[in-house]
Amino acid sequence: MVKIKKAVEANWKAIWPIVQETFDSGDTYPYAPETTKEEGYKVWMASPAATYVATKDGDIKGTYYIKPNQPGLGSHVCNAGYIVAAKARGKGIGRALCAHSLKEAVKLGFKAMQYNLVVCTNVNAIELWKDMGFEIIGTLPKAFNHRKKGLVDAHIMYQILK
Amino acid sequence: MVKIKKAVEANWKAIWPIVQETFDSGDTYPYAPETTKEEGYKVWMASPAATYVATKDGDIKGTYYIKPNQPGLGSHVCNAGYIVAAKARGKGIGRALCAHSLKEAVKLGFKAMQYNLVVCTNVNAIELWKDMGFEIIGTLPKAFNHRKKGLVDAHIMYQILK
Repeated sequence: MVKIKKAVEANWKAIWPIVQETFDSGDTYPYAPETTKEEGYKVWMASPAATYVATKDGDIKGTYYIKPNQPGLGSHVCNAGYIVAAKARGKGIGRALCAHSLKEAVKLGFKAMQYNLVVCTNVNAIELWKDMGFEIIGTLPKAFNHRKKGLVDAHIMYQILK
Repeated sequence: MVKIKKAVEANWKAIWPIVQETFDSGDTYPYAPETTKEEGYKVWMASPAATYVATKDGDIKGTYYIKPNQPGLGSHVCNAGYIVAAKARGKGIGRALCAHSLKEAVKLGFKAMQYNLVVCTNVNAIELWKDMGFEIIGTLPKAFNHRKKGLVDAHIMYQILK
């Protein structure tokens, strides 16, 4: 059973290895593999409107953040980013995080959700986001410098929240 | 004759009224009409990779910035924002700024340029960007809260630099 709740400061030491593992893979997030723990904290904990953790059997297995995607006149559209620990993937945690974020975004007053850079090689995620109601709005040619594959396309995905 | 050059600190007092005028109109940029001069400085002068001014007859009539659109693995794509003083519009200054930015972006090592939120009601700009080689990659429904028109669509525009 996955439980999702707001992250507290004390969670960061368990969140960071999961975030670092994904940044280090260089295949889904633009944050460089060499991102430091301090930079990671700013990105994942300090800058967002809120950060959440998914726990299973008492351990943190996944995390997501939610934040306005633009300032002022674009701040009714939020952005979210999700990470599941490599060893915990394929068990529905990503789907649970996304479902939670869509409800949480509405509670926080957001009207739409946007993903800015969904790497085209991240096919499982793309299928999941579509299943969760997102549409591919457009595709940016060569917008992501994949650590193993070089420059690849990235999708912008979006949905109006209900 | 329009001259475009890198902005220096001393230019800020002439740049800010032009930037403020546009932010205040609430029809093209997401920065709120109530943005302060200090916030404006951060956005327009401090955060970007570089800021430029267009002068005509010795006065600053327009300005643009250029910056990476994403961190790390997305930082080869730049973003730029342009503003021409309301009284100086319709005289080719916007076009000159855009043309300058495309060359400057290549010099700075960027591989592509992306506009994240081109308000659909800003029809003259959209035509100009198309003319300058940009494509509409996709359209975000109701992504911009236009000060007079409420929620309107916004385009993402993009071009690979040559």
